[in-house]
Parts: sequence; structure tokens; C-alpha cells
Amino acid sequence: MNIGLDMMGGDFAPLEAVKGLQLYLSGSNRTASLYCIGDETLVKPLLEEHQVASPNLHLVHAPEVIGYHEHPTKALKEKQRSSIAIGFHMLATGKIDAFISAGNTGAMLVGAMFSIKTIPGVLRPTISTVIPKLDGGTGIIMDAGLNSDCKPEQLDQFAVLGSLYAGNIFNIDNPKVGLINVGEEEGKGNLLAQATYPLLKENKKINFVGNIEGRDLFNNKADVMICDGFTGNIILKMAESVYDLVQARGYANDEYFTRFHYENYGGTPVLGVNRPVIIGHGISHAKAFKNMISVAEKMIESDVCGKITALFSNNLPE
Amino acid sequence: MNIGLDMMGGDFAPLEAVKGLQLYLSGSNRTASLYCIGDETLVKPLLEEHQVASPNLHLVHAPEVIGYHEHPTKALKEKQRSSIAIGFHMLATGKIDAFISAGNTGAMLVGAMFSIKTIPGVLRPTISTVIPKLDGGTGIIMDAGLNSDCKPEQLDQFAVLGSLYAGNIFNIDNPKVGLINVGEEEGKGNLLAQATYPLLKENKKINFVGNIEGRDLFNNKADVMICDGFTGNIILKMAESVYDLVQARGYANDEYFTRFHYENYGGTPVLGVNRPVIIGHGISHAKAFKNMISVAEKMIESDVCGKITALFSNNLPE
Repeated sequence: MNIGLDMMGGDFAPLEAVKGLQLYLSGSNRTASLYCIGDETLVKPLLEEHQVASPNLHLVHAPEVIGYHEHPTKALKEKQRSSIAIGFHMLATGKIDAFISAGNTGAMLVGAMFSIKTIPGVLRPTISTVIPKLDGGTGIIMDAGLNSDCKPEQLDQFAVLGSLYAGNIFNIDNPKVGLINVGEEEGKGNLLAQATYPLLKENKKINFVGNIEGRDLFNNKADVMICDGFTGNIILKMAESVYDLVQARGYANDEYFTRFHYENYGGTPVLGVNRPVIIGHGISHAKAFKNMISVAEKMIESDVCGKITALFSNNLPE
Repeated sequence: MNIGLDMMGGDFAPLEAVKGLQLYLSGSNRTASLYCIGDETLVKPLLEEHQVASPNLHLVHAPEVIGYHEHPTKALKEKQRSSIAIGFHMLATGKIDAFISAGNTGAMLVGAMFSIKTIPGVLRPTISTVIPKLDGGTGIIMDAGLNSDCKPEQLDQFAVLGSLYAGNIFNIDNPKVGLINVGEEEGKGNLLAQATYPLLKENKKINFVGNIEGRDLFNNKADVMICDGFTGNIILKMAESVYDLVQARGYANDEYFTRFHYENYGGTPVLGVNRPVIIGHGISHAKAFKNMISVAEKMIESDVCGKITALFSNNLPE
């Protein structure tokens, strides 16, 4: 398998991307070919300095960089020699099987949706966030901010996408799907939640367990927790701030709360597009880059995009 | 001032209500007359047993109780001798100046809106939750779950109601109002947030500081944090679960996290109705009851309902 990594994305790139590669390569069973896309005048000396070398490592020169505040569509169009544009070109043409970047999120989403394209039958791609469960398990919340306003049919699809993701990447067997809501009973909630509940209840592709509340996010009631991207983004950032709070109070080394640190998960795949695309946190450090490569490996190995395509092809008009 | 307390509301009533009275009366400067509304065959022996006695204490017999799962409107109509129905009757006729209950929330809301009635000019009453700020301050989130689906004009009014509440009850001078959103810049967010931002920006009755994100809820960017009741309820319950998490991890005695415990705040007033109505958590213990009485005192003293009436009368059609 071939994995493309944007060396120029993230606040601490390319140094932390280089260190992430080093960390990744220090592990065992590293058979993936890694394509490091970035400015070689910057990246090459760093790779040498940190003695990151492997026959599986290939440097792809990209002299341009899309900055954080650039307009995504405009930048992708004008900077065709940027690391993100080259990454998507390689992904679209099959030179790599997955593309990872901690760079301009908007550009990554535009690239994913317009260059890689949405899987037929999927209304809208989605992104997720990982929630550490108190009992040691892992949950995902979906949508984590890509789709602020959602329709019930989209939430219904997120449940299918999230179940496949949880099953294939986190090895959760028959993942429990919960609808994030303000009460347990059917009929509770805002208009969106009220209209989504019956769809999830009837959906035979998922294991729906009903509504879950804000207090259930960290317990084991549900593995895949569904909401619109507005709610999901508030939850994601609030959960990140819980880590900041325990750190400020001196409990940063607590085994459980350590798991709240974004670096443990690295980034989120864009689910619902034809190939694995992983978007990292802007403040990604080495561990985050290493973990994003691991997620890409799992996505390729499990062919989660192929499974999504197969599952959604049933819904297509004849 | 005269404060009515439903002795029968809450999972641990009437015992914890009695203990709450005891706690309250043990403080200094207790001049309020307290009307204890409940089944006197149950309440009187408990008051005697716990030696809760004061010339300011008056027992009002209410032989019926509205249970947790009863239909609010139906129960209020059929059980006119229940503690909640009698409480609202006393409040509506001026025998008491504030009414507190940890009983059936729906019945409390129906009572507040139909017996006490919404202040002219207020589109919808609202409830809030208290958020402990890391720097020691106190913030409020509004709406905390009363209005799942909101219009921009409602959120704009919540900002005014919340500012008055924060100023009069938490003594926050010129409270900073933030719109809970998925990004800092104007134009971010779902349709509701996008439409609400310009209203808040133009609102001269509040000190609007812009958008705040999920990570800002515990910092000091804003004192009054505005969102729809769906989002607010998720945040409220998630914040409550943070207390559960730190307790599970053994940090329950941490000075900051202790403040996450609902008992410190007791309950939430229904803001936007003509008289002080305070709804308690179903699991209220003594401290919560005591604190609800204190909030009622402050609401009466500061005449926050009168101030709301004055402020909203400007908006009324001529």
C-alpha cells in the first residue's frame, strides 16, 4: 500500500511530520510505502538530520504551500504545485491509496469532495471525533463539524458510515448507535432529532440503541453517537477543553484523561468519499502524524471505502 | 418577603427539603417568611424530628402530589390540591413572592407559563445552567433545554434575559455575552447562529463579545453564553458528566471540579415569566434546596422580574 503524507501541513510542519515518520518507522511491520509530499529543500535536510531513512520512503517535491487562511477552492486552483493539490492528484490517479494532511482543513475537504468525489448514494461526506469511554472503550461522534445544518436522511447515513468506521478501524463488533438527544424517550428533542429517530429505528444496516444524552457520551451506552455538525463540533471542542481543565488542575497524567488528548487519534477521515482522506489537527505533533498513518493503513487494509460503496450502491436508483 | 417551597418535589422529598430548610435557617440574616407546601402529615413530623422551627416558617397543607411521570397539564388541572398547584395559586395571588420546586419539571413550566404567565414582549421564557469558570468566575448558558428549536429573535432575547440574570443574581458587572458557535468569525455556524449573530451585534441592551466555541465554555471569554435549548441541554448534561468523570478518577475533592456539582446552584429560574419560579434538579439534596431559597431571595430583592418587564415594555407595540 502507498500512503501520501503532506509534510507541509500543520503549525509545526515540516519538523513534526518528519518526527512522526520517524516514530512510525520505529515500529514493527512497517510495509507501507510512504510518499512524503512537500518542499524538498526543507524536508530533505530534516529527514537527514533526524536520520529518517527507509527504502519505503519517497520524497515528492511540492514547492508551494496552501496557508491556513487561504480560500480553499481558490488556493487549490491557483497552487497546483502545493502539497495538498499534488496529494489529491496522486490519490485521484491511484499513485497513493490514502492522503493525510494537517494543513488547511477547507482545502482538504474541497479536495476530498471535488477531486476524490462523494461515493454514489452518499448525500454528504462526514467527519468524526473520537471520545474516550470511561470503561476503556472508544466511541465516535459524527458529524464533528463538517455539516452544521443536517437533514434527518443525512444523520441516518452518518449512522451507517460511523458503524462501518467503528467496526473496521476500531474493531468494534456490531457497534451500538445512539442518537444524541435531550431525553431518552422516542419523541424527545428538536425537530431534527424527532424526525431522525424513526429513520434510525427502521434502519436495518445499524444496531440502533435509541437516544443518548449529554451525560452518556463517556459511558458505554453507544459506540457511534450521531448528531448534526453544529452539536458535534461543540461537543468535540468541549471534550478537548476537558483535557485542558484536568491539565490546569494537575491531573494531566491520569491514565483516562490522557486519552482526551487529540494526539492519540491524530485526525479524522472524511467518510463518504471514494478514497481514504485523513485531516489532522492544525496543532499536530509527531504522535498525531504517526497515528494518522496508522489510521490510513487500517482504512486501506479493511477497504472501508469499498465497503461503503457496496453498502450504498443498494440505495441507488435503478 | 415570602418564599414558597414545594416540600414534596424531588426524589428525596420531603426529607431533603426539610434538611435544606434547616441548613438555610442555620445561616445569618434569615428574614424571609418561608411557606412550606406539602402533606402536613408527612412534613410536620419531619420538621419536628429535625427541630426545624422558626417564627418565619409556615406549613401549608397540600394533600396531593404530582408524580414525575404525570402529564403536566392534566395533573395540574386534576390535582388542584397538589403542592405545585397550590404553590402557583399562592404565587399568582401574591401570597408568596417566589415559588421553588424540585418536582415534575413539566408541571412547573406549565404552571409558570399559564398561571404566572410570560412577561409581555418576551417571546419565550427560558432556563439556564451555571458553568464554573476555571478562573473562579461563574458563567451561565441559556437556553438549557426549555426551547429545543429556537428562532434568532428568541436567542437575541435570551441574551437580554441572561444579562439581567447574571448581573442581578451573580453580580457580574456588564456581563459579556457570547454566541455559542463552531468558529470565532462572524458568518460561521449553522443557519440559526448565522442569523443570530447580527441581531446580537446590533443589540444595545447587551455587551456582545462575538462567537465563542466549545473550548471557551470554561474560560472567561463570555459570562452569558447563548444557544438553543437542544445544544444547551447537551452541554449541561455533558458538564454534569465531567463531575462524574473526575469523581470516578478520584479527584472529586478538587476545589474547581467540586463546583461542577449541581447542588452548588440548586436550580434554575424560569426567566421571562412575571414572578420568580425556580425549578430544582430531581435529585436535589439539602444543599440544593438551601441554595434555591437563596436564589429566590436574590431574585425578589433585586426585582429581576420587574427589571425584565421594564426592559421588554419598550419593545411592545404602541
